[in-house]
Formats: sequence, structure tokens, C-alpha cells
Amino acid sequence: MTERLVVVGGDAAGMSAASQARRRRGRDELEIVAFERGAHTSYSACGIPYWIGGLVAGGRDALVARSPEAFARDHAIDVRLGHDVTTVDLDRREVVARGPGGDVRLGFDHLVLGAGAGPVTPDWAAEAFAAGTRGVYRAQTLPDGEAIRAAVGAGARRAVVCGGGYIGVEVTEALLRRGLDVTVVQRGPQLMGSIDPEVSVGLRHAMEGHGATLRCGTVARGLVTRAGAVTAVATDQGEIPADLVVLALGVRPRTELAAAAGLRIGGSGGIATDDRQRALDADGAVVEGVYAAGDCTEVVHRVYGRRMTVALGTHANKQGRVAGITIGGGQARFPGVVGTAITGFFDVEAARTGLSCAEMGRAGVECVHATIESTTIAGYLPDAPRVTVRLVAEAATGRVVGGQLVGGRGAGKRIDTIATAVTAGMTAEDLVGLDLAYCPPYSPVWDPVQVAARKLLDALG
Amino acid sequence: MTERLVVVGGDAAGMSAASQARRRRGRDELEIVAFERGAHTSYSACGIPYWIGGLVAGGRDALVARSPEAFARDHAIDVRLGHDVTTVDLDRREVVARGPGGDVRLGFDHLVLGAGAGPVTPDWAAEAFAAGTRGVYRAQTLPDGEAIRAAVGAGARRAVVCGGGYIGVEVTEALLRRGLDVTVVQRGPQLMGSIDPEVSVGLRHAMEGHGATLRCGTVARGLVTRAGAVTAVATDQGEIPADLVVLALGVRPRTELAAAAGLRIGGSGGIATDDRQRALDADGAVVEGVYAAGDCTEVVHRVYGRRMTVALGTHANKQGRVAGITIGGGQARFPGVVGTAITGFFDVEAARTGLSCAEMGRAGVECVHATIESTTIAGYLPDAPRVTVRLVAEAATGRVVGGQLVGGRGAGKRIDTIATAVTAGMTAEDLVGLDLAYCPPYSPVWDPVQVAARKLLDALG
Repeated sequence: MTERLVVVGGDAAGMSAASQARRRRGRDELEIVAFERGAHTSYSACGIPYWIGGLVAGGRDALVARSPEAFARDHAIDVRLGHDVTTVDLDRREVVARGPGGDVRLGFDHLVLGAGAGPVTPDWAAEAFAAGTRGVYRAQTLPDGEAIRAAVGAGARRAVVCGGGYIGVEVTEALLRRGLDVTVVQRGPQLMGSIDPEVSVGLRHAMEGHGATLRCGTVARGLVTRAGAVTAVATDQGEIPADLVVLALGVRPRTELAAAAGLRIGGSGGIATDDRQRALDADGAVVEGVYAAGDCTEVVHRVYGRRMTVALGTHANKQGRVAGITIGGGQARFPGVVGTAITGFFDVEAARTGLSCAEMGRAGVECVHATIESTTIAGYLPDAPRVTVRLVAEAATGRVVGGQLVGGRGAGKRIDTIATAVTAGMTAEDLVGLDLAYCPPYSPVWDPVQVAARKLLDALG
Repeated sequence: MTERLVVVGGDAAGMSAASQARRRRGRDELEIVAFERGAHTSYSACGIPYWIGGLVAGGRDALVARSPEAFARDHAIDVRLGHDVTTVDLDRREVVARGPGGDVRLGFDHLVLGAGAGPVTPDWAAEAFAAGTRGVYRAQTLPDGEAIRAAVGAGARRAVVCGGGYIGVEVTEALLRRGLDVTVVQRGPQLMGSIDPEVSVGLRHAMEGHGATLRCGTVARGLVTRAGAVTAVATDQGEIPADLVVLALGVRPRTELAAAAGLRIGGSGGIATDDRQRALDADGAVVEGVYAAGDCTEVVHRVYGRRMTVALGTHANKQGRVAGITIGGGQARFPGVVGTAITGFFDVEAARTGLSCAEMGRAGVECVHATIESTTIAGYLPDAPRVTVRLVAEAATGRVVGGQLVGGRGAGKRIDTIATAVTAGMTAEDLVGLDLAYCPPYSPVWDPVQVAARKLLDALG
């Protein structure tokens, strides 16, 4: 008999799950229906800043990895756009979705919740959106990107970016590329709070060097408007004139549906699952046939086992894959994350993985760190880019638990070496002994990661 | 009482050992004398092709990491240039070096052999060098580089590079940059024998695209000369006109001194040591106080324990460090290699690590491999560079034992992720689960290494 898989949310997690399930179970065995409340499937939210910046040649459609038509044609997956799932009934094994033609009620044998995460929106901003104030936007969805592009095209000159995390930095570059004056308003004392200030200093200099105004330790309190359009952002440090305001204050898992259905929401705020992405009930027991994946879930940090939420397409794809394989009868597990992240600002690349000394301290573990300056290629080659690398280790064992780096071209993806070593539980000595690739145009004879590992060994004593 | 450390060979291995020993033992405790038969210390042999190509702004001196004067001033290390050590007497604990002022006889408490590796030179080439034939060179030492630069400067137009390995590829780029016509003569059926042809095809296309003529399956047999200068290379496929010939046929460990002293030479042809770089005697017992490091030694491959020789500055530095720390009374071990290597040709980057399927087969282990095409950054960004990745795993366990990749900017150093995973003994599933850095300008949402790991998982079944 044909079973039915219902997917809630047609983005990375949900559609990865659908595709993987289809690979293992043909259309005679498994009907797949995906409800997506927006107008697109599987788009790259992370690509939106680059689209705003004019770097995506193919325009909006280039950010869509696969269209509903392609899902239907290639995978026999029935994607229903503009359908907002309003109810998940686990007793009846059915969902209700509100669509353009009214409510749709559909039973399921398997359910994947991939509702994603929604933007953190302060009250003042929510009021502005409700009132239809012109000039204030988020940068999460394709319509968000389209609106910002339109505002830039209509002549916006002065932008305020609220939030100095990854997306804030990327949107700042995009707007500078488009010729705007940009001020970044950041509540905390520094941009990129997940990278220690001694390491991120090169990023700050690059941003200032490109003309961005950084207002750290500043809290946005509201908008000043005239005739329904933004004219300034009001902060605790006074008003900052703006005709374009972009909110990049992070996101929160969308868990309302799951909570209402009686699924367990973890302490970190995401839907709780096991490592096969199976949702749990209030008692922590697996709910058969119900899965959650992507930004709406919580993930486990592989170094200290702490549960957390991380909104990143790479995790969503991996989790969706695991859910889909499981639905298809295969074996796969999502092992968790080590907190790897990367961003850039023009030629500067910034990345981190694992835990910082501060995070280690909060976990009650004494740590040691070492920070070095080097170059990403042989220093005698022209314009060898500089790089700062910090490594963090447990004081008692020498095990490397985290790393951060900021530098020029070629710096960023070196974080993957550290992430792999952290995952493997390698010590500083292990890192020093790694056989990393050396050739002058690609690395100094001691890779910067290993220069840092050597200094870390010294620090460990 | 002051002890004495004598170092034979003033390059990466020897001088790393000397520096590390000095860090741990002051000048009152340890006298350090280094004999170097050439005119330079610690130079970057790997940088010579880039110097020939005109990419090293500071000229020859920029390739010297540290001068004898700096070693004397900063580390109280007495470097004696132009001194060729002719005898190592382990019974008397002394060496004899032939210098400009005659023989020098010097006792030692600690000895580091870092004589490096010498170029493989066929008889016909040795005869040419002995006869002073103009237009034929190697590319190993600074004088070699100087001679090639002089020949190019004097108007050489047609070059033949003998040998299509790493150095051959790099010298080919250098000579093309300088405007020469270049033909590469390679005995084997393909360039870069350590990368499978299905993967290296992009490198071959790049070389041909830049105008290099590739003559694989061709054996150089001699030189044609006129008036003491090269006019052609004679091969088994006929003559190839040339006014500049560069030999890049690989190197062999220099072990004569060690062998004459009664030290053990391993089956791979390098001086045998333990993992603290202590030399062994004929019975395999540690010879106290005698160390060997760098290109003159044999190293252990961490995947299958096979002993081999690998001439690479990165290993020489690490081994020298271990020898120096051991001499200084500290603890350090050189864990071996996984065969990581990288090179490039203009915008194409090529790298490998671990073992190939062919090597696995020779080791009697059944393997599975998977090869994928992807991009190094998000495919929707302009000019996203292509990359081909191959991963190799043990069929029985799924353990990843090797990888190869060839692609555009950003491809090459991804080999470090694979090298780290191979070192840690990760399986294909482990690689799929790694938390690698994602952001559109630096990676697709699935890093190419993980796309390959997924396909490898499928192949493993």
C-alpha cells in the first residue's frame, strides 16, 4: 500500500528529507507532499546578501536550488506553495494547511517538520512592519531581498544595519558595494560576538577601511518616520539618520506547530530529536513516524554535549538527509555540530569552530589559548595575505576544543582542518604532527594552523 | 660542562633541530656548530620555481628564511658555510668537514644528520654537467635557480622540462610566465603520477591551454649539443629542440655518510630512525646522541605503516623540531606522514593525500572510490571555480584512506580536511557528518569533500 510523507516547509531540511526518502522509495510506495507557505522551494537564504550586493548574475532564480516543477518532474514530489500548515494532529496523523483555496486536510504516515527559524523582531520593528512603514526590512527571504534591492534601486543613500553578526556583516558589504553609507548598530561591545576581539580586529579594521561606521554598545530603540517612511533609527545613543534599515538580529526556531502537537521543545528553544531526527514527546520518547530537521530543531554540540540551536543551511541539509534516509528505511545519524561558521567582508575571511575560552569557562573547564600571526601563503610571494589564528585547548588534556581565524584570501576554510581535528578529539601535539599540504602559493612551510598549535603546546607547558 | 651539538646540513631539518635545541639549552650548556656545504642556510627549495617565474619580489635573499648571521646573533649557532662533512666517526664521536681552509675535525655529544636529498641525474645528464655543457640545469638549489634565471635572461626561447611531477609542473608554469615555449617530457603515461588521471585531467587541460606541450610516455636519452651548448633533447621518440633543459626527475636521500658510519639505511633508501628521529644501527638499536631528520630519512606512512621517503620541507621542519626537542631534553615525536602534497598551475590547484586505489590494491586491501564534480564556492556566484574530488575508502570498513582533488581557486587546501580525517581514521559517514564551514563565497552548502563522501557512502553500499 502506498504510504504518504508530508513535509512542512519546502526549504533545505524538508526538501532534503523528501529527496532522500524518494531515492529509497519509489512513487508506488511513497506519496510525498510538501507544504511551503512562501512562493519558493529550496532557496539559499545565505545567498541573499550577495544578491543584494549585485554578485548573483542569474538574479533571484539563481538562488533557488530546485523549483517545485523540478521536484515534481524529477522526484514526483508534490510541492504546494502558499500553504501554511496550521495544525499537526498526531492522534489522527493528519495536518491542516491553509492554502489559497481554503484549508487542506491531509493524513500522513511520515511527517517531517522543517519549518525553519523566524527572524528576531523587536516590538518597534514589528509595529513598523504592521504599519507598512517604508524603508525597514529583514534579509531572510527572497521577498526580503527583493524589497531591499528595490529600495536601493529607488535611491536609498543611508543605511543602518541592526545587528553585527554574520548576516549583518554580509549585508553591510552588500550595501557598501551598492554605494550606500552604512552604519552598523550592535548591542554588544564588538561585532561577531562568537569570535574573540583579539582575533576579529582585522575584520573591524576592514569594515572601517571600507567606510562602514560601527556603533557597538548601541541599542536600537525604534524608528523615526515621516510620511510612512523611515528617516532615522532611534538608539540609546541618539538618532542615526537612515532611509534604509535592515534588521539582522538573528533568528529563533519556529516551534509553535510542534509545541501545539505535544512534541518536546528543548531547553535551547528548538524541537528536540534523537540523532535520527525523530521527534520526541514530552517524556522524551521517540514519536514514530514524526521527524524534525533544520533550523527549527536543537542540535548537540559534539565537544561538550550541550544542546543548542544553530540556523545554518549546512546543518539543515544534513539533518534533512538523515530524516529522509530513515524514512526510506536506511541507516544514518546526525552526529551534531562543533559550531563551525565562516563569513567574509570583501577580502577578509573570518571563521570559528568549537568553543572559545569564555565558553569553556562557562562550561567549568579550564582552558589555554594561543594566538599567532602568519600568512596564508609563503611570505615571500607578492601580497601574501595576513592571518590571525587562535586555538583553544583543555588545560588538563591538551585536547583542542576550538579555533578562530581572521585573515585574507585563503584563511577562512582552514577552519575546516581545525573543525575536523576538534571532532576527532585531537590534541595540540596531534595538530602539530598533521601532514598538511605545503607549497608556496598555498601555504607557508608550517601552516598557520600548525604555527598556532605549536604555540598552544608551549602554552600548555 | 658544555656539550656540543654538530649539525650536518644547514637547511630545514638541521637548522630546525639546532633552533629547537637552543630554545631548551642555553649557550653555556650547549655549543652548536652547523656545517653546510653550500653558501646558504634554510632556504626554500620549493620557492625556486616561483623565483624563476618572477614572482618573488625580494629576489634570492627572500627565499632564505634565516641567514647564518641571524643564526649566530639570535641563537648562538655557529654556521660554517662551504663545509662538506666527509666523515662521521661514531666511535670517536667526531666528524671531519672539508672547508675552504682545509679539514676541520670536531667532536660531538649530539649529532644531527640533515644532509637532504640529491637530484636524480641520469648518466647523460651527469656527463653534461661534468663537461660544463651550457643550457642544462636542475631546479633544486639557489645556484640552480640563479643559473636558470640567467639563461632565461640571456634569451633562451625553447625549454624542455624533463619530469612531470610537482617540480616539473611548477617549473613549466615559471618558464611559460617568462615567455618561453615549454615541452614537458614524462616517462610515465601521465603527469603527476600520484594523482589518478580521471582527477588530474583538469590540470592537463590547463597546461595545454597555457601552451605547454606534453610528451608523456617519452624517455629522454641524451642531449644534442653544439659548441658546448644544448640544442635538443634526444628521446626515444626523436629529438626535441631546446636551448634550455631543466631536469626535474625527483630526488634521492643522501645517505652515504650515514651508511659509511654504520647507521641503518631503510629499505626505502632513507636513513632509518625511531619516531624521536634517533638514528638506528645495523641491528635496529637506537644510537644514543645521533639523529637524522628531513629528506635524508625514511618516514612511516600512517595509514598502512609502510616506510617511504618523501622530500618535503614541511616534514623536514617537523622532524628537525622533534630532533631538537629531544636533544634539549623534551618530549616530542614525529608521527609520520599521510602522503599529502599540493601543487598548482596558474589558477588550477592539485592535491592528494593518503593512498589511491592502485596503492591500496598493491597493499592487498580492497578499496572503493568515488569521484564528483562540484564548485569551490556557491555555484550561483560569478565564475565559481570547478573542482573534481575523489575519495578512497577501505571496502570492508568504510574508513577513508585517501583523497585527490584538482580544481580552481580554493580547491587545493581542502586536501587538509581529508588529510586530517584520514589521520583520525574517519569513515565516509564520519566525513559526511563533519561540521565544515559554509558561506556562499567560500563553499557550496555541501562542501565538495562531503559531496564526495556522500557518493563514497553510496559506493560502499
